[in-house]
Amino acid sequence: MTFALNAWMNPHLHQVEQALMQWIDPQAPADLGQAMRYAVLDGGKRLRPLLVLAAAQAVGGAPALTRPAALRAACAIELIHAYSLVHDDMPCMDNDVLRRGKPTVHVQFGQAQALLAGDALQALAFELITPQDRSVPDAVQAALAGLLARASGYQGMAGGQAIDLASVGLALSESQLRQMHRLKTGALLLCSVQMGAVCAGQPDAQVMTALTHFGEAVGLAFQVVDDILDVTADSTTLGKTAGKDVAADKPTYVALMGLAPAQAFAAQLHQQAVSALDDSGLPLTQTQPLRALADMVIHRNN
Amino acid sequence: MTFALNAWMNPHLHQVEQALMQWIDPQAPADLGQAMRYAVLDGGKRLRPLLVLAAAQAVGGAPALTRPAALRAACAIELIHAYSLVHDDMPCMDNDVLRRGKPTVHVQFGQAQALLAGDALQALAFELITPQDRSVPDAVQAALAGLLARASGYQGMAGGQAIDLASVGLALSESQLRQMHRLKTGALLLCSVQMGAVCAGQPDAQVMTALTHFGEAVGLAFQVVDDILDVTADSTTLGKTAGKDVAADKPTYVALMGLAPAQAFAAQLHQQAVSALDDSGLPLTQTQPLRALADMVIHRNN
Repeated sequence: MTFALNAWMNPHLHQVEQALMQWIDPQAPADLGQAMRYAVLDGGKRLRPLLVLAAAQAVGGAPALTRPAALRAACAIELIHAYSLVHDDMPCMDNDVLRRGKPTVHVQFGQAQALLAGDALQALAFELITPQDRSVPDAVQAALAGLLARASGYQGMAGGQAIDLASVGLALSESQLRQMHRLKTGALLLCSVQMGAVCAGQPDAQVMTALTHFGEAVGLAFQVVDDILDVTADSTTLGKTAGKDVAADKPTYVALMGLAPAQAFAAQLHQQAVSALDDSGLPLTQTQPLRALADMVIHRNN
Repeated sequence: MTFALNAWMNPHLHQVEQALMQWIDPQAPADLGQAMRYAVLDGGKRLRPLLVLAAAQAVGGAPALTRPAALRAACAIELIHAYSLVHDDMPCMDNDVLRRGKPTVHVQFGQAQALLAGDALQALAFELITPQDRSVPDAVQAALAGLLARASGYQGMAGGQAIDLASVGLALSESQLRQMHRLKTGALLLCSVQMGAVCAGQPDAQVMTALTHFGEAVGLAFQVVDDILDVTADSTTLGKTAGKDVAADKPTYVALMGLAPAQAFAAQLHQQAVSALDDSGLPLTQTQPLRALADMVIHRNN
């Protein structure tokens, strides 16, 4: 494939960063804005925003950055991801003091402010996708809010985190592990693809089904690769502590199946993602950014 | 006024309780559903849901319970209120161990589960107002989500809590105190009225302005009465520790103006709320539930 991912990705990343900087108000009361900006800006791979923008392009044809809804959805899902990290890092959860090489939000701003910043980031995500300037049609606003709420809550990310909390030290079956990851990380990744599609109009059922299969496969592949990197990468490359899952006795795909079978499983999921796009009926040119992002998820080293 | 508030209120309260019980899924993973239900069910005055339903009736005429959007909005705002209490009670915030006579959520389920339950309740609020069964028009879904997000986030409740955190032990001016309460408690109370109005169609500008004035006055009155009760009521009547604000050196209206002037201020805000309804152009019969709720806010003893 001759598609140049970086040439596509860089302007999209730039616009997401600019929009996040603009939309997280530094003037929010009593340093809350500073804590929110600290949690979101200057870091992160922005995989979820890129999936939103790539899916919008896959369905709509034109570059997604011409669509206000897509940029808003891209930033909204990143805010949900960022808030989950802020809360996850708190002492009562994972008790992490470093993220992306910086002190975590509660270390920098205190636990109370971290709690509030996370709460406010979740609310801000829903603000971004419900602009009051008529730039996003009501039907798109309603669809985006519905998708984002369901992916974030008890049927999605928060539910997966609850399973994760309850699973430390337990021997999970492959189906239990898959269910945990389907909710904890998969739901937001799938939602990114679905939100992008919805921003580009009303995709037909064949397209939505194909993109849902794509999002599910990429979401699970992301987690399997995460588990693989925990044992194969060093901490410097990874940007976080390698071997942490093993040390914490967390159930992982590598622990469950072994390293080589986990690698084969990741490759199989990648193939499923590509096949889903082939079945979508969408032109190859439009789906190239999504295909390239799927490759990146599989071949990343951090 | 011969309007019988209880005769209006009881069936509305009953339906809100039934709906909350139905919509907070006990099957949510790993006890998350149990923690969410514990946080919301069997307690609370349900003032915000009642304001939603009363405002819907004020604008729409017919009893609000005939409108699916109004019941959904009523429950959604109660979930936001409930999540804020769960997070507020945590050790890093107010460190409360009892609420409504029961152990707080983090005492009962652990801090990690309390954090997740609060997060999931916020998401569920947005799920409730974006149903996928076409029972609520897209335009109403979009308007409700926009109002709720702004009232909950940095420009509303979360922002007010950040100011509150930063204000303990400081001498605030009346305008600073008002700003804190306008965000911390006022935003959700105002939002209740606005959401109710939006559920009943597209109210004209005169009606929305009048209801906004009503919601602002009732919201501030609620807080002034809270401050008064902290010094005049005993803990048993109050259902929480009386004198707590004074003990914590929190800025209050009573501390700022003295008891009698605070009582006069509450009466003045009540009069403003009533006048706003008089100016709305809405028929008296339709605004009776809102008027009665304003009376209740002023004359409550807990």
